[in-house]
Amino acid sequence: MNTFGRSFRVTTFGESHGAAIGAIVDGCPPGVEISTADIQLFLDRRKPGTSDLVTPRRESDLVEILSGVFEGKTLGTPIGLLIRNESAKSSDYDELREVFRPGHADRTFFEKYGIRDHRGGGRSSGRETAGRVAAGAIAAICLKKRKISIAGRIVEIHGESDPALFEKEIKEARDKGDSVGGIVSLTISGCQSGLGDPVFGKLDALLAGALMGIGGVKGIEIGSGFAASGMLGSEHNDPMTPEEYLSNNAGGILGGISSGQDITIRLAVKPTASICKPQNTIDKTGNQRSITVGGRHDPCIAIRIVPVAETMAALVILDTLLEQEKYAAWKEQE
Amino acid sequence: MNTFGRSFRVTTFGESHGAAIGAIVDGCPPGVEISTADIQLFLDRRKPGTSDLVTPRRESDLVEILSGVFEGKTLGTPIGLLIRNESAKSSDYDELREVFRPGHADRTFFEKYGIRDHRGGGRSSGRETAGRVAAGAIAAICLKKRKISIAGRIVEIHGESDPALFEKEIKEARDKGDSVGGIVSLTISGCQSGLGDPVFGKLDALLAGALMGIGGVKGIEIGSGFAASGMLGSEHNDPMTPEEYLSNNAGGILGGISSGQDITIRLAVKPTASICKPQNTIDKTGNQRSITVGGRHDPCIAIRIVPVAETMAALVILDTLLEQEKYAAWKEQE
Amino acid sequence: MNTFGRSFRVTTFGESHGAAIGAIVDGCPPGVEISTADIQLFLDRRKPGTSDLVTPRRESDLVEILSGVFEGKTLGTPIGLLIRNESAKSSDYDELREVFRPGHADRTFFEKYGIRDHRGGGRSSGRETAGRVAAGAIAAICLKKRKISIAGRIVEIHGESDPALFEKEIKEARDKGDSVGGIVSLTISGCQSGLGDPVFGKLDALLAGALMGIGGVKGIEIGSGFAASGMLGSEHNDPMTPEEYLSNNAGGILGGISSGQDITIRLAVKPTASICKPQNTIDKTGNQRSITVGGRHDPCIAIRIVPVAETMAALVILDTLLEQEKYAAWKEQE
Amino acid sequence: MNTFGRSFRVTTFGESHGAAIGAIVDGCPPGVEISTADIQLFLDRRKPGTSDLVTPRRESDLVEILSGVFEGKTLGTPIGLLIRNESAKSSDYDELREVFRPGHADRTFFEKYGIRDHRGGGRSSGRETAGRVAAGAIAAICLKKRKISIAGRIVEIHGESDPALFEKEIKEARDKGDSVGGIVSLTISGCQSGLGDPVFGKLDALLAGALMGIGGVKGIEIGSGFAASGMLGSEHNDPMTPEEYLSNNAGGILGGISSGQDITIRLAVKPTASICKPQNTIDKTGNQRSITVGGRHDPCIAIRIVPVAETMAALVILDTLLEQEKYAAWKEQE
Repeated sequence: MNTFGRSFRVTTFGESHGAAIGAIVDGCPPGVEISTADIQLFLDRRKPGTSDLVTPRRESDLVEILSGVFEGKTLGTPIGLLIRNESAKSSDYDELREVFRPGHADRTFFEKYGIRDHRGGGRSSGRETAGRVAAGAIAAICLKKRKISIAGRIVEIHGESDPALFEKEIKEARDKGDSVGGIVSLTISGCQSGLGDPVFGKLDALLAGALMGIGGVKGIEIGSGFAASGMLGSEHNDPMTPEEYLSNNAGGILGGISSGQDITIRLAVKPTASICKPQNTIDKTGNQRSITVGGRHDPCIAIRIVPVAETMAALVILDTLLEQEKYAAWKEQE
Repeated sequence: MNTFGRSFRVTTFGESHGAAIGAIVDGCPPGVEISTADIQLFLDRRKPGTSDLVTPRRESDLVEILSGVFEGKTLGTPIGLLIRNESAKSSDYDELREVFRPGHADRTFFEKYGIRDHRGGGRSSGRETAGRVAAGAIAAICLKKRKISIAGRIVEIHGESDPALFEKEIKEARDKGDSVGGIVSLTISGCQSGLGDPVFGKLDALLAGALMGIGGVKGIEIGSGFAASGMLGSEHNDPMTPEEYLSNNAGGILGGISSGQDITIRLAVKPTASICKPQNTIDKTGNQRSITVGGRHDPCIAIRIVPVAETMAALVILDTLLEQEKYAAWKEQE
Repeated sequence: MNTFGRSFRVTTFGESHGAAIGAIVDGCPPGVEISTADIQLFLDRRKPGTSDLVTPRRESDLVEILSGVFEGKTLGTPIGLLIRNESAKSSDYDELREVFRPGHADRTFFEKYGIRDHRGGGRSSGRETAGRVAAGAIAAICLKKRKISIAGRIVEIHGESDPALFEKEIKEARDKGDSVGGIVSLTISGCQSGLGDPVFGKLDALLAGALMGIGGVKGIEIGSGFAASGMLGSEHNDPMTPEEYLSNNAGGILGGISSGQDITIRLAVKPTASICKPQNTIDKTGNQRSITVGGRHDPCIAIRIVPVAETMAALVILDTLLEQEKYAAWKEQE
Repeated sequence: MNTFGRSFRVTTFGESHGAAIGAIVDGCPPGVEISTADIQLFLDRRKPGTSDLVTPRRESDLVEILSGVFEGKTLGTPIGLLIRNESAKSSDYDELREVFRPGHADRTFFEKYGIRDHRGGGRSSGRETAGRVAAGAIAAICLKKRKISIAGRIVEIHGESDPALFEKEIKEARDKGDSVGGIVSLTISGCQSGLGDPVFGKLDALLAGALMGIGGVKGIEIGSGFAASGMLGSEHNDPMTPEEYLSNNAGGILGGISSGQDITIRLAVKPTASICKPQNTIDKTGNQRSITVGGRHDPCIAIRIVPVAETMAALVILDTLLEQEKYAAWKEQE
């Protein structure tokens, strides 16, 4: 299942150290102005090598639009997106041909498929998200025309919620050859009420599925989240006046349908699995091994998850928006 | 979207106070022994009116198998499941024809569809889950043949984690006309490695989507969950020996694929939205109103979510298991 | 796969001699006026026992709406439809427990599933189409509001194209214990241009798939059909004037998209497989057997396929119409 | 909808005169030996410019595998396939920016999307099928490992069924600036019984949908096809002996499930719409125009449809085979 969405469908492909990464966007409305530069802005935010807090792997991550856009506008036909892999230093990964890295998908991929591309995690690499981001950029551009915006940010690193200390936490871990986790918050603003389809296509369910599918995410909260479990109904219910909701414990979604309030989400991100400390593991033949993961890694993947989470949320919101349009259109014609 | 799953597909229907609730199960393997009594066991766990901690609404919730089972075994054809609604005291709900209850989907359903069945929440009622449970019971029975079991339980009520205090918390809230939230844990045991499909059908993503789609769930954790955000990579990675994983922060899923360890999940459940205290709200024409929700309600829906969460998880696991079988079968024939 | 459609999704269930036949319609626009009587009109056209040219099996085929309709209007939630089987004379079918009828799916169902309900063909019986017709009736009612109509009729029986001879051909075959085939034509009128989705959801492809899936259909033509293979391009192309297309060899579909002309289709229907003459066959253990099929059968299923074909076409047209609405809505808001 | 299949899913992209054509194959079993050369063999059969009976447009149609294959074997991850467009003489098509060609999708695309790539038909060009053929080649290679083969051939051109006259018919039409239709037959051999899913995923329905979705196909027959409509049941039913079916009017499919016999199909293909004779048409603003279609065209597209039909059939057969494997696997483990 490398396809996401019902109306706005994204199919991605690509291994970390293969020839290319990319995506096909199917179901984009026709007539939308899209340029390579528009998409590139999103990719550049996700790109490695941009600061000393992220992996030094160098990828220009230049996207090429292969189809579906003609004279600057979408045709309604599928949009092919291609990003060539450049910095594919496969030799870094020779040891990994036989040994499974702890915290990674090396072993589970092998057990599932009986074969794997060991170079940089292959398909399970975070690099896979470049395809999602390129596709999600198009969704975000469409949403902007509807005045819907999605903003993610880091709200905690290694238990610290003071932004002044984020860099310190990351560098301390990195300097010890270790890594840290964090929490990402996401706010979706300007979203109309009525999006999401009960009972198996609820908006919160779709968002949870989309965001839990980002590598490294271990928890998701909508609105009050886990705090709700400690509350009384009289505290949690959001009262209404003719003008507004007086609080937003619901996180902008009631009964799986958007209420028109801001949609608020929090994501728990685990520490990067690749660390330079020796770890106990096994190899393909089941023998005990110790491994120290070389290569170039992010000390805190939460940072680079921010643009990925934004674009995944954009895919969900645009998809449910297009699904809802057909019924709205029907009613207007009645 | 009232259909769930790819290989084992469940489609449900039914409003709280309509004629009936039910489901069609499509894609159940043929030759599985299934009886009405087997399914009834699961429904009885979800059923209202079973103790003084849940709603006194009386529903016998008797399921009828309409098709797909012949001489006690599944045919491989769709299994129709029917549960008649009995205790449909619609008059309890006359006030709700015009007024939106806080914390409920009354307003969002109206804004989405322009029409709604106001009686007991209609399709947004927790009663809808009877259809899921009947269908999920069949999944659980299939999984039992593969020695996979799923067990849910309450681990926190209103912030209390001592089981001795759960009843006290619930009764205290109920006696004040209020309600409480809680946390449900779920453990899936006996699950083989290899289930789940990167990148948009990851097992954790499917579980998160399935469980966040249960009414009242506001947060989900897999394995270490939010605690992961405060950990170092060297603490979080699960080391391996030839015999076993030495810890389970991953929660049994790595890279979206089951590892063979127990799959561990926690769900945050909000307090029941229906409370007997007066609340500020609006009506369909936008006027300010005060509402005190009558009718028969659960003071803590977390309790009744346990069997629903178990059966939703069963649907996900069986579905991914059947998806995986085709590739396993392919390899065997190579 | 017992689900059909993307936006307007129909899932059916039921065996010929089980407890019931039925369907769930998911994705019907909200606010549409629907009554049991409206649906019953369509079922009555398909119903057995209505003349001496069709099977004398008596089924009242009364449909019950279980959900999704409230105070006479659709809610936008799934519509459950139930038809109880009444005339289930299973004993007629005792011989078929072991023996495979030629021309039927008895053997292939057994080879696929390893188990089957032998009574009247079980799921492979034409009775299954009652569920489709009930669901398709709702689609047809929706289309009527858009002034789209679908009309089927018999145009050939046993090679005869003179309607005056249809009854004679059928009775002659029936009196000899035999059956006859025929050709059904279908005309869809009032359909706007723009329906259908290249390249795998072309309107002609969807119609062909929908109609070939009706038991007994062996061939399908759109517009010029097989005659096109004998034509020159200069004969086949439909010239255009500002007012109209000057011919309709395309059958109302160009490049998989409706053109606004009438959509014209022809279906080849095989003779009913159940005949009273002795036939050579085998049983479950592979032994040679002779069989004379008892029970109550149609001497010419083409007749009863007419309303089934109309409703299947209605499902396709409404589904593509709803798919198209979302993009139309998008453009209007630009 | 540019995605085809359930288990073996193909998503294609690309316009005739855009940057590239291609596909993503998702769900290919892991461990299958695949090379660029294997796929190229199939593309070369479809390629333009290979004889004087087909279009002289020159395209090398070289395919690049972008992902999903590692050290010569499939990984189970999506396989990205890329074919660059080379011979994109857009200037040939300048007139078509404003004028709709009769028999083409120019007008319906414009009416559907409100925008179109006029160069060579854009997405509606037969060139789109290169993506399908590349993907279907992989399916055919997988099927070969199961000893299933698919062979297509021309059986009629312009009403002539004598192969000695095919070339004559085509050249005669071409020399007059005209084009001719034809009939393609397809035989699928070696296919096990049990493929296809009643009631909406019947094997004949899937094949009909897949093949009617090839541009220019106007009719489809399975087995006896339209001849069935003129037969008696006693003639049409295929008798069985312990060793075999004694005839094959069913065309290898009974009740939508393969019987193990050869699957036989016939396709009616219309004459190429592009002809050099003047034709009456209209332009985008609705004015009457005359058009003579320049560019490079096939005088008989039936010829080049043969490899496309074979690969589409391969996609259907492999998809249903993988779907069936999961239930077969389940039974084995019971």
